[in-house]
Amino acid sequence: MADEKTFTKELRESLENKRMGNNFLGILNDIKRRPSDAAKELEISKEEIENIINGKIRLSSEIISKATKIWPVNSRDFYIMHDDCPSGLKIMRYEDSVKSGRIMHRSGKPYYEYRDTAMSSVGPFRPEWIEMLCVVDDNEPNNKQTQWNNGHFMHQFTYFLGDVNFYYIDDNGEKKVGVMNIGDSNYITPFTPHSFATRKDAKKNGLILALTYGNNLSGDSQHELSSLGKKLGKEFALDFSSKENASASLIKFHRNNSSLTLHELSKRTNMNIEKLKDFENGKIPTYSEYTILAEHFNVNIRDLFSYDKISNKVIVRLHKNTKKWFYPEDTKNYELVELASTISLPYSKALEINILSENNKTLDLKVGLHQYGYNIGNTDVSISYESEDGLKDDMVKPGDSFYMKPFVEHNFRGKGKLLVLRISGKITGEPQRELSLMGKKNTARAINDSLQWFDAKGKN
Amino acid sequence: MADEKTFTKELRESLENKRMGNNFLGILNDIKRRPSDAAKELEISKEEIENIINGKIRLSSEIISKATKIWPVNSRDFYIMHDDCPSGLKIMRYEDSVKSGRIMHRSGKPYYEYRDTAMSSVGPFRPEWIEMLCVVDDNEPNNKQTQWNNGHFMHQFTYFLGDVNFYYIDDNGEKKVGVMNIGDSNYITPFTPHSFATRKDAKKNGLILALTYGNNLSGDSQHELSSLGKKLGKEFALDFSSKENASASLIKFHRNNSSLTLHELSKRTNMNIEKLKDFENGKIPTYSEYTILAEHFNVNIRDLFSYDKISNKVIVRLHKNTKKWFYPEDTKNYELVELASTISLPYSKALEINILSENNKTLDLKVGLHQYGYNIGNTDVSISYESEDGLKDDMVKPGDSFYMKPFVEHNFRGKGKLLVLRISGKITGEPQRELSLMGKKNTARAINDSLQWFDAKGKN
Repeated sequence: MADEKTFTKELRESLENKRMGNNFLGILNDIKRRPSDAAKELEISKEEIENIINGKIRLSSEIISKATKIWPVNSRDFYIMHDDCPSGLKIMRYEDSVKSGRIMHRSGKPYYEYRDTAMSSVGPFRPEWIEMLCVVDDNEPNNKQTQWNNGHFMHQFTYFLGDVNFYYIDDNGEKKVGVMNIGDSNYITPFTPHSFATRKDAKKNGLILALTYGNNLSGDSQHELSSLGKKLGKEFALDFSSKENASASLIKFHRNNSSLTLHELSKRTNMNIEKLKDFENGKIPTYSEYTILAEHFNVNIRDLFSYDKISNKVIVRLHKNTKKWFYPEDTKNYELVELASTISLPYSKALEINILSENNKTLDLKVGLHQYGYNIGNTDVSISYESEDGLKDDMVKPGDSFYMKPFVEHNFRGKGKLLVLRISGKITGEPQRELSLMGKKNTARAINDSLQWFDAKGKN
Repeated sequence: MADEKTFTKELRESLENKRMGNNFLGILNDIKRRPSDAAKELEISKEEIENIINGKIRLSSEIISKATKIWPVNSRDFYIMHDDCPSGLKIMRYEDSVKSGRIMHRSGKPYYEYRDTAMSSVGPFRPEWIEMLCVVDDNEPNNKQTQWNNGHFMHQFTYFLGDVNFYYIDDNGEKKVGVMNIGDSNYITPFTPHSFATRKDAKKNGLILALTYGNNLSGDSQHELSSLGKKLGKEFALDFSSKENASASLIKFHRNNSSLTLHELSKRTNMNIEKLKDFENGKIPTYSEYTILAEHFNVNIRDLFSYDKISNKVIVRLHKNTKKWFYPEDTKNYELVELASTISLPYSKALEINILSENNKTLDLKVGLHQYGYNIGNTDVSISYESEDGLKDDMVKPGDSFYMKPFVEHNFRGKGKLLVLRISGKITGEPQRELSLMGKKNTARAINDSLQWFDAKGKN
């Protein structure tokens, strides 16, 4: 066993070195350096460069540090994402979750117990199981025992596992309380202050699953904003306070990107200047007017569209108001229940899955989003999935949670009940469109280029 | 002078340490660790953690390495983008560009000379000045002296500075040659093989500015694709081979994200199943049908829209066919010339700027995109810009190039001529929409959070 484990660890390290090598070659390609150019500038041998590219030796932090001094590159460019989930599925057991428990005090009193649930270095989920240690004796939004947080950068989907009061600031800046019960759910926009507490009449302390996650602004884009500084960074925020303002902002933004005058745009579109001014003051163009504007900006209609509605900052979905249906179309192996979601996050979908089939072997689920799951029922759920090494099985027990990579074929069997949250990582959305446009045959190179941009021997 | 330089270097390091500290706090917030939790798990003192957060000491690579072992985080999360352009403008002088020259041999003969031009760690440009050392004696696409490359991951905008033959593979897979002259321009899609050569009758070797850059797929998204592996990664590529296929793919993708059956979707939308099947087979919905579909997927119409047209892989714009206009509306300080662009990159705009005013002090340009510029004329161009420390002036001489951060107010004065390329970094597009939705008042926290997600002292 020890040997096998060592072998696996070595194999994985060697795979990571290869990926780091490919990534390094990609950086050299981008700045048009051949291995020999890079060797000279980094003051190491050409052989060492080639061994790094081939993954025979691991790129050292010294070389990275040197590279950032001589080239306009960043350390983060050289570090790849660590794959801690090579099979496609990573389960966190209830017992390990318990061990991660930590009590959060507020105002000197125990307020919450936090426990980690399944997380992966590949997926953007930061999900916590939380017990409310504070008991409130009324449902007033101004209850003095309630301690509010500052809001946080991450988006939050919450699933309620018991009798919990949910405190939040609504769109008018007023404090509100939602009296929540098991199966209810919500979505909380970043930086919206909120709190949770157990109700006095509850049989036991309230529990929630607080599933937080970064979306498009986390990672590279936040780093870029930060490197531009607050003064310039703030300018990126367009006025999305209403649909009208959003439309006006986007049209102005695109016209300015090309430094087009109203005069020139009017000439191109055959629309008079007054009409164009109205659009930039909040009049929403018709679909055919959008078509003309987009054509003359040489952008797509979708680039001029904002959100279809400006959603509330907090969305509460009571379990009794959920939509339910059977899935798949033919076998009906599951009953699905649609939980809280927001139009601001089109790739974020939460479901309750009631499992209705115990034996059927078909892998009847495959989703192009990162998935998080938690066994919220009282019975074990078996999971089968197609890993890189073929079909695998595992068991998700009550209180266990899991992370699953996108596009892994799988099924759930038994009589249990899961909470599932599906979200985009960094690919879904515009990067996915760019990948799609490159065509299937170029995707392998886009994912991990192992070619120099030219062959020295020539190519006719 | 030495003292001032040291002071500046120290000040910049201290600012970077602060940003690294804020970023570190952001990571701790995301995984819901207080400084005391982090200290315990990283086995360092709480004081050291607090000093890292405050920027008093720099986060070491040892601590980062430890963190990646105990938490589901990646080394790249901890490294910020280095700001090598604190004033907002970075100029590369012609002389320094000459020094970076390197001769690229193909098939044993000198084929190109490459020279770096202005690049920044903050901006995505990877621009090269290239001289064609290979002289061809005909304009045939199959000329045997022409050595083709493999295509590359980056998008390319090319500006022609002389008599150059441009070789490329067109959308039908056929070799083509474009007979290009000064002022012509093109766009080349990633992984499209191409080549350039000097024409026999040219008075001197042909020159181009080959401005390459990554778009949405570079950085985080490529790292995520690579960590998911080629098998799963490839699945992200939707079928965008035609407008019909793209529409069908996107509708199927969104329906599958929610595991909606056709039956359930039909019930919700009041559209019959046959019609829904037609949409998933390539029939393009009307605008009002899109509205209904989007509403019931709880996504935006724009999320269902693909590109307005599937653009050619190579776009050539001859100078004689360009559009020209004066800017700004009132003062007409510039004549602008629109160069090659593609609808696939709505935030990528190239212009020739003919400068018509020598004295006017107004900062009449401010663009929400990263900007690259090159003095393609014969006379000096003066540039004034608003830096963090107030108004600054500089001179861009013939052959000099520059990088400018987004939203820097500036002007160009003199009688000269610039080539300018404006592109998005990692913020423009969907991240910018997310930032806009958070509202102006939360942008500072989104850019660089210096708050823990809660105050231990409590908050009513």
